[in-house]
Amino acid sequence: MTDEELHGRLIDQQGSRHGLNTPVLIVDLDALARNIDAMAAFAQRHGVRLRPHAKTHKSADIARRQLAAGAVGVCCAKLGEAEVLADQGVDAGLHVTSPVVSAPAIARLMALNARTEGLMCVVDNPANVAALGAAAEGLKPLMVIIDIDPGIRRTGVGSAPAAVALFEAIQAQAGLRYAGVQCYCGAQQHIEDFAARRQAMQDRAAFIRTVIEALAAAGGRPQIVTGGGTGTHRIDVELGLFTELQVGSYVFMDGQYLACDLTGDGAAAPFETALMVDARVVSANTPGLATIDAGFKAFATDAGDPSILAGAPDGATYRFMGDEHGLLILPDKGTLPLAHRVTLGAPHCDPTVNLYDTYHVVQGDTLRALWPVSARGRSR
Amino acid sequence: MTDEELHGRLIDQQGSRHGLNTPVLIVDLDALARNIDAMAAFAQRHGVRLRPHAKTHKSADIARRQLAAGAVGVCCAKLGEAEVLADQGVDAGLHVTSPVVSAPAIARLMALNARTEGLMCVVDNPANVAALGAAAEGLKPLMVIIDIDPGIRRTGVGSAPAAVALFEAIQAQAGLRYAGVQCYCGAQQHIEDFAARRQAMQDRAAFIRTVIEALAAAGGRPQIVTGGGTGTHRIDVELGLFTELQVGSYVFMDGQYLACDLTGDGAAAPFETALMVDARVVSANTPGLATIDAGFKAFATDAGDPSILAGAPDGATYRFMGDEHGLLILPDKGTLPLAHRVTLGAPHCDPTVNLYDTYHVVQGDTLRALWPVSARGRSR
Repeated sequence: MTDEELHGRLIDQQGSRHGLNTPVLIVDLDALARNIDAMAAFAQRHGVRLRPHAKTHKSADIARRQLAAGAVGVCCAKLGEAEVLADQGVDAGLHVTSPVVSAPAIARLMALNARTEGLMCVVDNPANVAALGAAAEGLKPLMVIIDIDPGIRRTGVGSAPAAVALFEAIQAQAGLRYAGVQCYCGAQQHIEDFAARRQAMQDRAAFIRTVIEALAAAGGRPQIVTGGGTGTHRIDVELGLFTELQVGSYVFMDGQYLACDLTGDGAAAPFETALMVDARVVSANTPGLATIDAGFKAFATDAGDPSILAGAPDGATYRFMGDEHGLLILPDKGTLPLAHRVTLGAPHCDPTVNLYDTYHVVQGDTLRALWPVSARGRSR
Repeated sequence: MTDEELHGRLIDQQGSRHGLNTPVLIVDLDALARNIDAMAAFAQRHGVRLRPHAKTHKSADIARRQLAAGAVGVCCAKLGEAEVLADQGVDAGLHVTSPVVSAPAIARLMALNARTEGLMCVVDNPANVAALGAAAEGLKPLMVIIDIDPGIRRTGVGSAPAAVALFEAIQAQAGLRYAGVQCYCGAQQHIEDFAARRQAMQDRAAFIRTVIEALAAAGGRPQIVTGGGTGTHRIDVELGLFTELQVGSYVFMDGQYLACDLTGDGAAAPFETALMVDARVVSANTPGLATIDAGFKAFATDAGDPSILAGAPDGATYRFMGDEHGLLILPDKGTLPLAHRVTLGAPHCDPTVNLYDTYHVVQGDTLRALWPVSARGRSR
């Protein structure tokens, strides 16, 4: 199918959000721009660099906007994301935040390093350092970052001695350049109360400092300390620990983060909902209920139910009804007509975005652009 | 990116499953063929037609194999799926099992009807019948099927009088041809005990019969009665109600269906696991744990945790660890080496398939083909 044919199917009434087939992934262009600018200004104000996480949006178009606002690069969760962004010209300052361990993946990493500037990846295991070092020998050196486990046992070294041993292993490899440390405190991001979140981060920061001091004592004071997230960004800069933030979700803001007090002073969240899904009523045979065309294949299901943002009366709620459908439960035995459009918010943006090939970018009800979800499905 | 470049990235050691980057969606070609043949033989033995549901696989390659084994067509959940299959030459006997209601979608439906043979779609609302009739006027007539609500209030008419009124509305439209009824008993599919499932289906069948008798009395005895599913297929044929089955999951078999007693006589399930995900260990710093590269973006999360099929010791279990990772919990403080390959089963196949662009089709450890997930993301 050509792009033109595809475009014809996606948009049947050119230029209007009303004419889009549903379910469709919508980005509010102005809200997105405000979010990007707000985080860029925040980072500048606090003297930290910004390398936003592209795993949220998987989009070269959005990455370019983040870079234009001052980001030093973007983070990628997987090598495949970084490859696709590089293909689209986002080829400087890429950082792969999850270990790259298999022989075929390491070969691809070396190829990516050759064609990009400032590529970094994390390591958490001496065997992986040896494999990367062997692959990089005689080639352009690869920058590596030591991943520190914040205590959830997902990735990272778990202690200062393990970090020092890894630093020494890196130093022994001519093809590798030690660039610093990463510690992403994922579990702390979603603590809804600000004070409790701050306490949890202060506890983690104390641990990270012991690792950094041990590295410094061994000659490996990190130039880069990368971490932080949308949920903790205000606390991250207070800690004075991170040289750069790898915040991701702030571009879109999902239900999980909107539930958190992000400011600690009762003020509104500094970011706003910029991502949503438009759906339509496809069946309406029971008073008080309306079936829409968005189910498990339209929303990630790991974080509860979608919220209703527009198009249904106050008090209406959404319930998943299988792969293809959702049910709107309407107050007062209300009804909605067939084909009526409803706008929903995603409980968790990142895996919801990963279900769609295209962002439909709107200003109000006007369709402004189609942006591909460039790295959709690139989980490897 | 050209297909060749993409292929080069997907498979780094040509021809071997061992060389695949992970996470990767794997189809066991022989198990798939046995499942397709077993259901085809079952339908033939019981004198029912087979129109398997393509929402499970979204693949023209698999649809063609089902047709070659005797299927009269395939079902599609959404219009977009049917369009993509038609693009790939699967253009006869398509049935869209969810209502098509918006003006732009109805225009696409008419275009699809013009270029395919025997297209059918469901209706459950007189307003939709009027809209379809107006669109079809003067064009090739469109075959429509009355959708009957099995009691879950998702789609379908809820009573015999409503079905008769819809039949009369269809008859009043020159552009529409009444073709029969659909009743998909989704909630009954996953009742694990066979006798309880049979009782539930007998109850639903009694209701469906009253609708059919009312339609017959009004001159609308249905030629097609479509429904049934993998969970109830043995019961569906006992009921003597359905002229054709729209079974879907039997091609792959997921954890939900493997948990059901499908035969009622204690015999093994007549279908076997043909779909799986290969993943790799990317971090292994804690005895008893191994982190693999497959999380929320590698598995649908609506039906529990993935099972471990191969590559880990007996007693190991999987736990989701965010978008990109999963944790294997290993017995006896065991360990697995970095890059070690583990094979997992999906708790729910349909939305898991929808996460991937490509099936990697294997026989044993030999890679035989790459099949695109042709209709991936075509939820509209």
